[in-house]
Amino acid sequence: MEIRDFQNLMKKLYFHQDNKRGLNKTFIWLVEEIGELAQLLKTESIDREKISEELADIIAWTNSIANLLNIDIEKALYTKYPNKCKKCNSIPCKCGK
Amino acid sequence: MEIRDFQNLMKKLYFHQDNKRGLNKTFIWLVEEIGELAQLLKTESIDREKISEELADIIAWTNSIANLLNIDIEKALYTKYPNKCKKCNSIPCKCGK
Repeated sequence: MEIRDFQNLMKKLYFHQDNKRGLNKTFIWLVEEIGELAQLLKTESIDREKISEELADIIAWTNSIANLLNIDIEKALYTKYPNKCKKCNSIPCKCGK
Repeated sequence: MEIRDFQNLMKKLYFHQDNKRGLNKTFIWLVEEIGELAQLLKTESIDREKISEELADIIAWTNSIANLLNIDIEKALYTKYPNKCKKCNSIPCKCGK
């Protein structure tokens, strides 16, 4: 799936709710997902299936914020992470992202 | 760009560092990016360019966590967000994600 298609799907499914909720509250929902991931990571046994869901939720809410600000996530990713490390120009990165 | 290609790029660029750092510390880096986004959102004037960078970083670190756990992000997104709301089966969603 293209990154752009996923962002458009989020827009189609949730923009009306995201827009009604607004930017600040949408950010709070994103932070909640980070908290849910934290809960899973602090346990002794790693549940990869549940963690998969939380990672998907984090990306979904990040896309919701992008949609509210009319930010193109695919472009943002490509700009920040071109096909090399932007800081040290190396593949793999030698400096730490 | 395909979601899978971006995850592979993150693996190619950063997996050796992510693996050395480990899961818990990689999560802390993700949380730091959330904090940086918070700093931008709390200001009065919204800087879309800087916010774009932080959204990219959040997605990048989320992919790093996925790589450490061998989780396929594209599959995780499709499973959690098929082409409709999974909870209410509607397009757009009527229940809130």
